[in-house]
Amino acid sequence: MFETAELGRSLPKETYEAELPALRARLMQAQLALKESRSRVLVIISGVDGAGKAMVVHRLNEWLDPRGVNTHAFDEPTDEERQRPYFWRFWRAMPVRGRTAILYGSWYTEPIIGMVHETLKRAELDAAMRRIAAQEQMLAEDGVVFLKLWFHLSKEAQYRRLKDLEADPHRHWRVLPTDWKHHQLYETFIRAAGRMIRLTNRPHAPWQLIEATDDRFRDLTAGRLLLAAFEQALAMPSKSAAARSGRTAMPRLKVTPIGRARTILDQVDLTRSLTKGRYRKQLTARQALWNQLVWKAADAGVSNVIVFEGWDAAGKGSCIRRVTEAMDPRHYQIISVAAPTEEERAHHYLWRFWKWLPRDGRVTIFDRSWYGRVLVERVEKFATTAEWSRAYGEINDFEEQLCEHGIVLHKYWIHISKEEQLARFQKREKIDYKRYKITEEDWRNRKKWNAYKAAVNDMVAHTSTGNAPWTLVPGNDKRYARTFILKDLGRRLKRAIK
Amino acid sequence: MFETAELGRSLPKETYEAELPALRARLMQAQLALKESRSRVLVIISGVDGAGKAMVVHRLNEWLDPRGVNTHAFDEPTDEERQRPYFWRFWRAMPVRGRTAILYGSWYTEPIIGMVHETLKRAELDAAMRRIAAQEQMLAEDGVVFLKLWFHLSKEAQYRRLKDLEADPHRHWRVLPTDWKHHQLYETFIRAAGRMIRLTNRPHAPWQLIEATDDRFRDLTAGRLLLAAFEQALAMPSKSAAARSGRTAMPRLKVTPIGRARTILDQVDLTRSLTKGRYRKQLTARQALWNQLVWKAADAGVSNVIVFEGWDAAGKGSCIRRVTEAMDPRHYQIISVAAPTEEERAHHYLWRFWKWLPRDGRVTIFDRSWYGRVLVERVEKFATTAEWSRAYGEINDFEEQLCEHGIVLHKYWIHISKEEQLARFQKREKIDYKRYKITEEDWRNRKKWNAYKAAVNDMVAHTSTGNAPWTLVPGNDKRYARTFILKDLGRRLKRAIK
Repeated sequence: MFETAELGRSLPKETYEAELPALRARLMQAQLALKESRSRVLVIISGVDGAGKAMVVHRLNEWLDPRGVNTHAFDEPTDEERQRPYFWRFWRAMPVRGRTAILYGSWYTEPIIGMVHETLKRAELDAAMRRIAAQEQMLAEDGVVFLKLWFHLSKEAQYRRLKDLEADPHRHWRVLPTDWKHHQLYETFIRAAGRMIRLTNRPHAPWQLIEATDDRFRDLTAGRLLLAAFEQALAMPSKSAAARSGRTAMPRLKVTPIGRARTILDQVDLTRSLTKGRYRKQLTARQALWNQLVWKAADAGVSNVIVFEGWDAAGKGSCIRRVTEAMDPRHYQIISVAAPTEEERAHHYLWRFWKWLPRDGRVTIFDRSWYGRVLVERVEKFATTAEWSRAYGEINDFEEQLCEHGIVLHKYWIHISKEEQLARFQKREKIDYKRYKITEEDWRNRKKWNAYKAAVNDMVAHTSTGNAPWTLVPGNDKRYARTFILKDLGRRLKRAIK
Repeated sequence: MFETAELGRSLPKETYEAELPALRARLMQAQLALKESRSRVLVIISGVDGAGKAMVVHRLNEWLDPRGVNTHAFDEPTDEERQRPYFWRFWRAMPVRGRTAILYGSWYTEPIIGMVHETLKRAELDAAMRRIAAQEQMLAEDGVVFLKLWFHLSKEAQYRRLKDLEADPHRHWRVLPTDWKHHQLYETFIRAAGRMIRLTNRPHAPWQLIEATDDRFRDLTAGRLLLAAFEQALAMPSKSAAARSGRTAMPRLKVTPIGRARTILDQVDLTRSLTKGRYRKQLTARQALWNQLVWKAADAGVSNVIVFEGWDAAGKGSCIRRVTEAMDPRHYQIISVAAPTEEERAHHYLWRFWKWLPRDGRVTIFDRSWYGRVLVERVEKFATTAEWSRAYGEINDFEEQLCEHGIVLHKYWIHISKEEQLARFQKREKIDYKRYKITEEDWRNRKKWNAYKAAVNDMVAHTSTGNAPWTLVPGNDKRYARTFILKDLGRRLKRAIK
């Protein structure tokens, strides 16, 4: 999930300064208009230590009219607060209609700390998240517009940030003793945060991940999202209109991307390659290991589900062959996913994948998968926006059930460059027995490269989870891709049956 | 919750036989039409042992065209099933578009058994329910219409039913050895079932409680609800229409009540009364005990929230006075709830009640309360149907938070007959210092007696929960009502601080 907030996005000073005056003017204007409406805006500031949350709070306060906004910082609860139910202190901070409240620290803080320090079990965290989601839905249905911001830093970036601050004689006091302790717990924290975000990322109160390595990018993005939230609040129908239609309209946030639109795929190092000699050696060794591990898994009753996705001509088929070559045919089945049959269309889209789940100790390999819902069905508009948007949550829920059952789930996106794809298409057209592999549809898909790229980025952002992470495979060199996958499969399965 | 399914509802043979042919004809017709639609119906059969669930399944199969319906009975999972995630076996039973599936035993069975035998902790049950709710929502959004039937028997009715069956030489085999064991666990079972129903009673998949003491009433109600489900399925927009509007319409089930419309209030014995002499004695004793207990609670840090609701002129004020007379003024506050102020209107409707929650060891008495949302606001149409419908869940969630914090929550509805109310109104108009108490509005409310009665019944059905049950107080005799409440308060508080 957080991979998509580790893209190194930044903003040059000139762009920042050129954008700022207009943004500030529009923020003020929107805030003024909000006063007349029955809606209100609740900003929740969360994220990684060192990401500059306090700075963002200062900045937003600087940009807004102080008479329309309240900032509430939540620290340890007071006696008064401790003697009431958990949400009591937050209800005190609720904005009235026409106003904005910024919560620095929120109802998310305690559960996540509980998770990190293991005072809270997972089922308890889930229950806390269910409650939070219900509260947020209730408030949203009453006209509260949510802006939930998560400011993210990678572990390395957090380290650099803390070190830089310490070295600065004017700012070293910003580093709290707890900051370094939290840095040690980074992985645990991020895992808990990912789960938390996944369980509370709902249409009425979506999370926004903001990459926080660059101050200007961070602040301007926050400001722009706040403006979007104001505009959403202003677009709400009046009480009577809402009552007539029987529900409150909740348009989605639309955010103009700032700066160059980088996606997670731009992070993949496509120069990786392997000589034929090393390839042979690696392939043999890794296939042997994979074979051994699959036998062990069969004995232990551990099953595997392997998902292959990727661009047309990325080499999914040849990768799958290298994986299955090393397996006993009784252990696996390959499911090639094409357009659904009539029976499949008469069911929920997940039905045909449920059907093929392996029994204990077996392996199912999906050549394309349920991710079609958020890739081809999204890009080709076979699914409505509502359908593919909610599919992320449905897929997470589905995969969580697999993992809870003990299935080891592997997900690979094989990435190639647009140029490499063209070269492969042209080559295929020249070889008789490969010509069947290339169709009109492939050329049509190719024209939608950027739309697919955005879809892949969103897919990774929403569905790369602790137990079921996405692995992006550099695929320009086929040899490299194949051994890379075999190595990764082995590593993950070994860990699962150890 | 289940009180509303213990009203002794039954159906005379003639009514049943007169209604049945038309119902069966319409069921067949609707089922036929369903085949052409893209929707499908999923019937879940649950309930108390001895309620006749198997009989209902037979009946429905008898009434339907067997070619359009599949019945799946779920017992212990097979090897095949155990080796896959929990939901796998249920996905195999999903109806295709145009068809109906009846699940006898379902995804609810295992969690509830786990709760009863305490192999499942509450947070785990909640997590299981969250997952079920998500699955049901996903299927509903894909066009599945849910009919979730809960067949209810009181503990006494269950006992009688099992005894009757045992005594019948032709049917004694229907009593399974486990049935008596479950009878022993009735209270635990009902508590778990109540929680389960509350957590999964959602607009897209509502539960229907059916009183099952009378076979004819039980079967005809199930049949009528199934017809309503068919009609809901047929009313669904086609795929393209749904896609255009961006969401699937999900109209609410509308069911014509069968037989005389009894409500929970008809169960209250209004003949209860107390002589002046006994009243004096009881009042003194119970006030003394209450005083003691409140002091103890203050020392122990246990707080109380007491809610008084009831008809106009039911005597809420005088009951509250008898309760507070016995308390130290530092211990309590009374919140009289009238129309909201301007500030209160600028917040969510629950905000003004959150505000007044007592700190540890204190008592807050609400003279009218958040239940206004589902009583006066519903009847007077101050709240939209969507608003008051979802308020049940919001209120349950709110009260659950109070109980989890350790607050003892008492909820009293003081009931009087319509005639008694009239007598009191007329009496008040004759007494100078009481005349201010009776307004035009009271007379207007009186005209809506039946609408309020239905609202009270729904309120109890949805919000009388394990930790926060409703107590219906016989109020025709004021003396009886006052000592009844004091006794009940004492009993409940004593249990909480023991």
